[in-house]
Amino acid sequence: MSDMLKTGATIGILGGGQLGRMLSVAASRLGFRTHIFEPGAHPPAADVAHQVTTAPYEDAAALGAFAAAVDVITYEFENIPTTALDLLEPLRPIRPGREALRISQDRITEKDFLTGLGLKTAPYAAVDDAASLEAAIAAVGVPAILKTRRFGYDGKGQSRLMAATDAPRALADMAGSPAILEGFVDFQYEVSVIGARNTRGDVACYDPGENVHRDGILHRTTVPSRLSAALRMDAVLLTARILNALDYVGVMGVELFVTPQGLIVNEIAPRVHNSGHWTQNGCTIDQFEQHIRAVAGWPLGDGSRHADVVMENLIGADMDRVPDLAREPATALHLYGKAEVKAGRKMGHINRIVTPKG
Amino acid sequence: MSDMLKTGATIGILGGGQLGRMLSVAASRLGFRTHIFEPGAHPPAADVAHQVTTAPYEDAAALGAFAAAVDVITYEFENIPTTALDLLEPLRPIRPGREALRISQDRITEKDFLTGLGLKTAPYAAVDDAASLEAAIAAVGVPAILKTRRFGYDGKGQSRLMAATDAPRALADMAGSPAILEGFVDFQYEVSVIGARNTRGDVACYDPGENVHRDGILHRTTVPSRLSAALRMDAVLLTARILNALDYVGVMGVELFVTPQGLIVNEIAPRVHNSGHWTQNGCTIDQFEQHIRAVAGWPLGDGSRHADVVMENLIGADMDRVPDLAREPATALHLYGKAEVKAGRKMGHINRIVTPKG
Repeated sequence: MSDMLKTGATIGILGGGQLGRMLSVAASRLGFRTHIFEPGAHPPAADVAHQVTTAPYEDAAALGAFAAAVDVITYEFENIPTTALDLLEPLRPIRPGREALRISQDRITEKDFLTGLGLKTAPYAAVDDAASLEAAIAAVGVPAILKTRRFGYDGKGQSRLMAATDAPRALADMAGSPAILEGFVDFQYEVSVIGARNTRGDVACYDPGENVHRDGILHRTTVPSRLSAALRMDAVLLTARILNALDYVGVMGVELFVTPQGLIVNEIAPRVHNSGHWTQNGCTIDQFEQHIRAVAGWPLGDGSRHADVVMENLIGADMDRVPDLAREPATALHLYGKAEVKAGRKMGHINRIVTPKG
Repeated sequence: MSDMLKTGATIGILGGGQLGRMLSVAASRLGFRTHIFEPGAHPPAADVAHQVTTAPYEDAAALGAFAAAVDVITYEFENIPTTALDLLEPLRPIRPGREALRISQDRITEKDFLTGLGLKTAPYAAVDDAASLEAAIAAVGVPAILKTRRFGYDGKGQSRLMAATDAPRALADMAGSPAILEGFVDFQYEVSVIGARNTRGDVACYDPGENVHRDGILHRTTVPSRLSAALRMDAVLLTARILNALDYVGVMGVELFVTPQGLIVNEIAPRVHNSGHWTQNGCTIDQFEQHIRAVAGWPLGDGSRHADVVMENLIGADMDRVPDLAREPATALHLYGKAEVKAGRKMGHINRIVTPKG
């Protein structure tokens, strides 16, 4: 692969949270430097980055200087303003590419894309006002969830409708933003596949993990999941179909509902994913290095699993448990260095090695 | 442990090479920042450190500012000038402590300490001039190696004597530095133990690795070694004796010759050690995190081995092999981001997972 980035090259990362932090660490293992672009002060990724630009995404001069200082651009979150991407795109390769961002930034576009590939999603309909919400309820049924089409994460920008009479309140919760009504899926459990694709089109997927959420935030991922061998194969193949359709370069998280009728795609995230953190202690090459390898034009690494792992997020006051967790055998701590503990804030995670895989 | 350093605390590291780089990465996993003090420009550790001070060890003001900016001080190499340590010691805890440095900085002091503990070393004698060299040859015999007492590493500052007639040349090689004559040890192979001790006095050792050198530089470490269970126990116990005798806090590398008469201590290094790099892919908690845990007043982590690993250093032109190595399954690359490739320069290493341990 003659286009492999060389030792000493710099990878630009849009966003300086914990994902950017762990991407920086992975980049350092391959001899790369990172340059973080982040509007907020004291981003967690800055502690392990070669350089940091603190500027808003509207600062064209800062974006231009950032692009000039890096060899390739990637990102740790999908909600990057389009104007910033328009400015960066002619200057340096953005990986994963614009098409993946365009699709994942809008829940309607994403579901249209997925169903267009022949994949199943929850029933859905676009909602802009009271009239379209009424029509959506008629089409999708209740219970259902009304979500903003854009900029939602960790359960934010969502409102449940248990009955049609909840419509006015739910619509008010959207505060005028374009929305999507999604029907409830009666699922047994949720899994996610962390897939990767490189510039040559090679695809590799990690063993699917089983996810449990609390208050709309991922609480725990367990590998192996309860998936049958047949469903595991389905999950990997549909992930590959998504990656190939987007000519994708990088790591993607694909959340799936497991139902008696098969797998239903919940959502896709064009980046490393919280439910893939277990790979740090379950695989030789984790999702962060896999992403860096892909965006750097490298061969993908060996993502086979060598251990059973339970990943648990440390949210807010869970940080009080750190002294005890540090004493646990076969438990790896991963803390993000965030100074201020806030309720609902992701402060770190642990990977418990449940049993060595024989 | 109420003296546990908290998330967001800063660990000062003297020396900015690859060991400092990998210590910084490990510190980030526990939510710590690092501050590197390094006289040379563009140190590899700077890419993943929160802050870097570029100043000579003679710069008292820079040392003072460095100490004021950190919570605890550690180091990646043992040859730190005494004057710098004298200045830093009253300001912040230095871990491992001064005694470990005093002993490991001088090969005579080190061997006196080891034999004082009842451990076996190669026969040795101090050499300052032609007369003492003649006496040393009479006591130790030939073949033997003349080494500078201080500041030697990777085979530098060493000269072989195959016969007594080599004495004048060997003495000239020392260029007037105080020296030590060490008798040859007829060993079957070399192993090293990576041991750790924390502020509470808990001790943990990794499984000993078997080392092969080329041109005086470590080439390969293999775990498990060929050691019998009895010798493995001896190796761990003698390492614990050394750690306890020094009231040591941190990770130490102990190099041992395996002979028909048992284990002979070659040398000790009061820091993370090249022969412990395999722990990055063979253990849940690697030597770098173990060192950070110890110096941060944390409980030691679980250092049990979950895989068989062969670590190989990438020296100089070995970097040309990186594209092929990146394709190898079950091989983890660790590159140091050094811009300039030089003969004999450590550029990175690989950990090959030979077989999952059942």
